[in-house]
Amino acid sequence: MDEIKVFVPATVSNVACGFDIMGFPIEDPGDIMIFRKREDKEIVITRIEGAVDIPKDPVRNVAGVVSRAMLEDQGMPFGLEIEMEKGIKPGSGIGSSGAGSAGAAWAVNQLLGNVYSDEELVSFAMLGEESISGARHADNVAPALLGGFVLIPGYDPLRLVRLQYPADLYCTIFHPQIEIRTRDAREILRKELPLQDAVRQWGNVAGLVAGLMQEDYGLISSSLEDVVAEPVRSLLIPSFDELKQQALAAGALGCSISGSGPAVFALSRGRETAGKVRKAMEKVYQDKEIGWKSYVSAIAEEGVKILS
Amino acid sequence: MDEIKVFVPATVSNVACGFDIMGFPIEDPGDIMIFRKREDKEIVITRIEGAVDIPKDPVRNVAGVVSRAMLEDQGMPFGLEIEMEKGIKPGSGIGSSGAGSAGAAWAVNQLLGNVYSDEELVSFAMLGEESISGARHADNVAPALLGGFVLIPGYDPLRLVRLQYPADLYCTIFHPQIEIRTRDAREILRKELPLQDAVRQWGNVAGLVAGLMQEDYGLISSSLEDVVAEPVRSLLIPSFDELKQQALAAGALGCSISGSGPAVFALSRGRETAGKVRKAMEKVYQDKEIGWKSYVSAIAEEGVKILS
Repeated sequence: MDEIKVFVPATVSNVACGFDIMGFPIEDPGDIMIFRKREDKEIVITRIEGAVDIPKDPVRNVAGVVSRAMLEDQGMPFGLEIEMEKGIKPGSGIGSSGAGSAGAAWAVNQLLGNVYSDEELVSFAMLGEESISGARHADNVAPALLGGFVLIPGYDPLRLVRLQYPADLYCTIFHPQIEIRTRDAREILRKELPLQDAVRQWGNVAGLVAGLMQEDYGLISSSLEDVVAEPVRSLLIPSFDELKQQALAAGALGCSISGSGPAVFALSRGRETAGKVRKAMEKVYQDKEIGWKSYVSAIAEEGVKILS
Repeated sequence: MDEIKVFVPATVSNVACGFDIMGFPIEDPGDIMIFRKREDKEIVITRIEGAVDIPKDPVRNVAGVVSRAMLEDQGMPFGLEIEMEKGIKPGSGIGSSGAGSAGAAWAVNQLLGNVYSDEELVSFAMLGEESISGARHADNVAPALLGGFVLIPGYDPLRLVRLQYPADLYCTIFHPQIEIRTRDAREILRKELPLQDAVRQWGNVAGLVAGLMQEDYGLISSSLEDVVAEPVRSLLIPSFDELKQQALAAGALGCSISGSGPAVFALSRGRETAGKVRKAMEKVYQDKEIGWKSYVSAIAEEGVKILS
């Protein structure tokens, strides 16, 4: 195989209470990436469409960073030419850098003849995340790679768990067109948590995992609460409180910030409710100067997909 | 019904990572409690066997506190005479006050004609815990009342979830005969947690819940880690590190402090391994001046049981 073209889904990470430890991919939007072997040892990024502010310089581009680490690990058997069509806007909170990183890890592994385990691929992909946000987190790259609802119970060593979840769970994404850099969104977080908040958070984490696995919508709903990141990060998202309130009023099980925002996600039972939630959120922004994009999607069973 | 005699099991709370949000009862030891209606409105504790330092004064005794709250809630239809045979040593870390509180809640509800829900019973029982430790926690009383592996995802409102768990999971308890008061053990905890530790803890919580439900012993094992309470509380338990090390070397999936200690618990796959773990822990204390008690038990499917 000398060339591969893949689709890499956007991902919702954190999922309210699960800061840094869980996420899932959605069906749409996503990035398309092409990786083509070069006979020399160069890694070059020849084309980036759909985003103006992503560097083509491979040492500053997550796909370049991840590709280089993998090829060097294998003794640089070949170089690479990379093309990207960004469907996921950078700084959106739905895993733009995660998609670039995960897509590179998955595709380069194919070009190498499928030599790495899932854990190794996630570890390589985290190098991309680290290069851009300063934090080694897997809650976008792991679900983008594995598909489904993915748990990362521990980072040292890296552990990955695919959770069962109800087939009828749908996600609404509402993405106000402002940009929040992951690095900035991490820096405003409190570095210390009151024990009481931490207990509340891990109670919700436990409840969400049990709720998903037991298909208990009431438990999923009551567990979709974030007392750690949302109270701080929501201040960066215009009308967050109203978006959330309207989403819940329209029937969402829960609503919080996707990743580090500004995208807001809601989970609902059934596609129809998720559609109503989308409309309710759009209404909040209808008279605002700020544009938005919105999506309704199932939790994608599959992560990175081969296109050709 | 004018009189009821119940067995109330000891409980392991926290279960390493799940501080304040999970616990399970064991088969042995436990308390025996007798509740007898009185025609006047008095609550009197006439007999306490097996423990010298539990007050008979009903306003300072957890069973008295819980009984009074329930009877007052019902307009004091009768008074009570209470007898207790303590099989669970106070200050042991295996839910002595929790057993007194849960036993009272369960038995008085029976004498009242079964008028309360599980959540209401747990709430009444928490009044007993609060009276003795200053903290409204349900991770002993909920498993003592409900049986099985119980999760308390949230306290406000109180939520209770019974988790599936592998039938082959056995618990070893090693109880050094020193006393640690829950109140003191709570006071030495840090009131603030580094975000990084909190993330590690809720990753483990998520992993433990998923591991129990998926019957994944590897995941259960890797998730039985406590970076919050154990590093501090273990300092109060003589040779804790060696107990833990020997338990793991003997095949335990994990080992940590039961509740606020000094009892140490280990979980193992199979009763035979749990027995080896017990022997390994006993060996650590064989030349010490400190006495101990040890137990091997399945996770008790049932909580409070009626004896007559």
